[in-house]
Amino acid sequence: MKRLTLHGRIRSCRILVGESFQNLDSYCPRDETLLVTDRRVFGLHLPLFSGWRVLFIGRGEGAKTLAVVEGLLEEFLRRGADRRTTIAAVGGGVVCDVAGLAASLYMRGLRLGLVPTTLLAQVDAAVGGKNGVNFEGYKNLLGTFRQPDFVLTDPAFLTTLPRREIRNGLAEIVKAAVISDGGMVRFLEKNAARALALEPDVMAGLVERSLRTKIRVVESDEFEGGPRRLLNFGHTLGHALEKAGSYSHGQAVAVGMSAAARLSAGMGFIPRGEADRLLRLLRSLGLPTSAGKAGRKALAALAKDKKRSGTDIQFVFLQDALGRAAARPISLGDLKEALRAVC
Amino acid sequence: MKRLTLHGRIRSCRILVGESFQNLDSYCPRDETLLVTDRRVFGLHLPLFSGWRVLFIGRGEGAKTLAVVEGLLEEFLRRGADRRTTIAAVGGGVVCDVAGLAASLYMRGLRLGLVPTTLLAQVDAAVGGKNGVNFEGYKNLLGTFRQPDFVLTDPAFLTTLPRREIRNGLAEIVKAAVISDGGMVRFLEKNAARALALEPDVMAGLVERSLRTKIRVVESDEFEGGPRRLLNFGHTLGHALEKAGSYSHGQAVAVGMSAAARLSAGMGFIPRGEADRLLRLLRSLGLPTSAGKAGRKALAALAKDKKRSGTDIQFVFLQDALGRAAARPISLGDLKEALRAVC
Repeated sequence: MKRLTLHGRIRSCRILVGESFQNLDSYCPRDETLLVTDRRVFGLHLPLFSGWRVLFIGRGEGAKTLAVVEGLLEEFLRRGADRRTTIAAVGGGVVCDVAGLAASLYMRGLRLGLVPTTLLAQVDAAVGGKNGVNFEGYKNLLGTFRQPDFVLTDPAFLTTLPRREIRNGLAEIVKAAVISDGGMVRFLEKNAARALALEPDVMAGLVERSLRTKIRVVESDEFEGGPRRLLNFGHTLGHALEKAGSYSHGQAVAVGMSAAARLSAGMGFIPRGEADRLLRLLRSLGLPTSAGKAGRKALAALAKDKKRSGTDIQFVFLQDALGRAAARPISLGDLKEALRAVC
Repeated sequence: MKRLTLHGRIRSCRILVGESFQNLDSYCPRDETLLVTDRRVFGLHLPLFSGWRVLFIGRGEGAKTLAVVEGLLEEFLRRGADRRTTIAAVGGGVVCDVAGLAASLYMRGLRLGLVPTTLLAQVDAAVGGKNGVNFEGYKNLLGTFRQPDFVLTDPAFLTTLPRREIRNGLAEIVKAAVISDGGMVRFLEKNAARALALEPDVMAGLVERSLRTKIRVVESDEFEGGPRRLLNFGHTLGHALEKAGSYSHGQAVAVGMSAAARLSAGMGFIPRGEADRLLRLLRSLGLPTSAGKAGRKALAALAKDKKRSGTDIQFVFLQDALGRAAARPISLGDLKEALRAVC
């Protein structure tokens, strides 16, 4: 087990990388904790939940609503939650986001622990202090910034994940590497097959290294005025693709990163060979690199979505080589045209 | 006009004491601002709102609900609010609390300005970075801590307030004085009549001095682990009385402060003469100092409300003399008995 710390302006978050869920009660006593999970995670790991008080929310993106948050808040009250209570979310990004928002609102903030059970949530969603729900069709439109008190990542959860979920997480691991860690890109290139096979040593190293990147970026820009934008690499088109349906988050981000890399090469920010390198890496991890018809549909949605923020939008490009990125303004027209050419 | 600053951990809040509403657009441009108010404030100050985009919420404590917050969020979206938008609340504590919570959730936090129009909100509710709504009968159970970007207090608003509203504010001004500013207590004792008559010089001084106390206490304990509790002087019983009906916030807090002062004397923390001094001051400002039947009803509600936090509760006592206070634990049983004796 490795302990990392994300130093937030108000509170710091302890990140217990590779800790066992069995030790959860040393971070939050059972009688002062409410676990939040969904029925699928509960069903897969039934024995783990014994002796804990458990609250349930629905599964999937559809549960990311204010109504679900309100339901949790009612349940907190019914169970007598007060300033001594810890809310511990056990699940994927949706469970962490919804429980995190509810915990941040109740009595202006209860103690919060996150136990991400998907690779995606372990390397990305659970760390950084953002929570949120969707609103009127807009992804994560409502939420707060609040660092959890601790995040516990237990590799045992990863063994029950479907292959698609593993690839989702690998896409975000690739993202962490290409925006700021050239050495990690090379490590991934050499170890793609071992990563896909969830080899414990390889995964432990990748999770820890992704988290170190995320911690570094978040610490430099906790409330997202600048550098934190780099974490959106591949996500501008990615979110639009995900919303248009048929792609998982990781697949959508993989296509988004591919398009952004091609665009970066097309505009002369990186050599074309570097973009090709990223596409090869993504393919070796079983991730898609182009979208076709779904891509065109997503572009139309993107244009609608971004219209509100005026003409120029901030877009994350690769810079010089894999391992560096930079946000630059680009007009929506130019972006659409460039993306259409590479989709 | 005096500029004060509350230095928060994440953002600082500029407090423009005695600034005119007419200058609001130098703090938030009209085309990037949405004002939030209620119909009563709007009706009283119609000409002020011309040229601004205005959103309405219902009046009074009944509007402090999650549903009203959600309605505002829908309206923000409909009006195209984005990261450049400022939400400016113009009204009493309810408008400030509800608009503040909505602004803190939308896109994880829009720029926020508060323009408190009641004396109570000018000296207390608008400053300190708390917002909130009631939930399932519990006052301010849900909310966030978020410093507004600015607070503008315009004395012109006070001239339209009913006498009862003025007394509400004076009760919080007395509280600010007795917990930390002995000189201000003496000033109030000498100038009660002039304060009740809203004499501009006296009021300007009192508002500024109350704000300085509040800023000092909040800066020392922004997220309410310790000293900020002192601001709750008179509020333990006060909230219960207010909830039981028939008392305004200021009246309820005045009775609560009287009971707390008598209790402080009974337990030997202050001489009896000091408690009498506070009661005389409150009476000279037209505020009640005892409750009778309503008090007994409130005590029963208080017992129910506080049961959840275990046996001991933190109660704010006066210490040595008017102008100093300290929080100490007291058992609910002892508190009830002591309060019954003084109610």
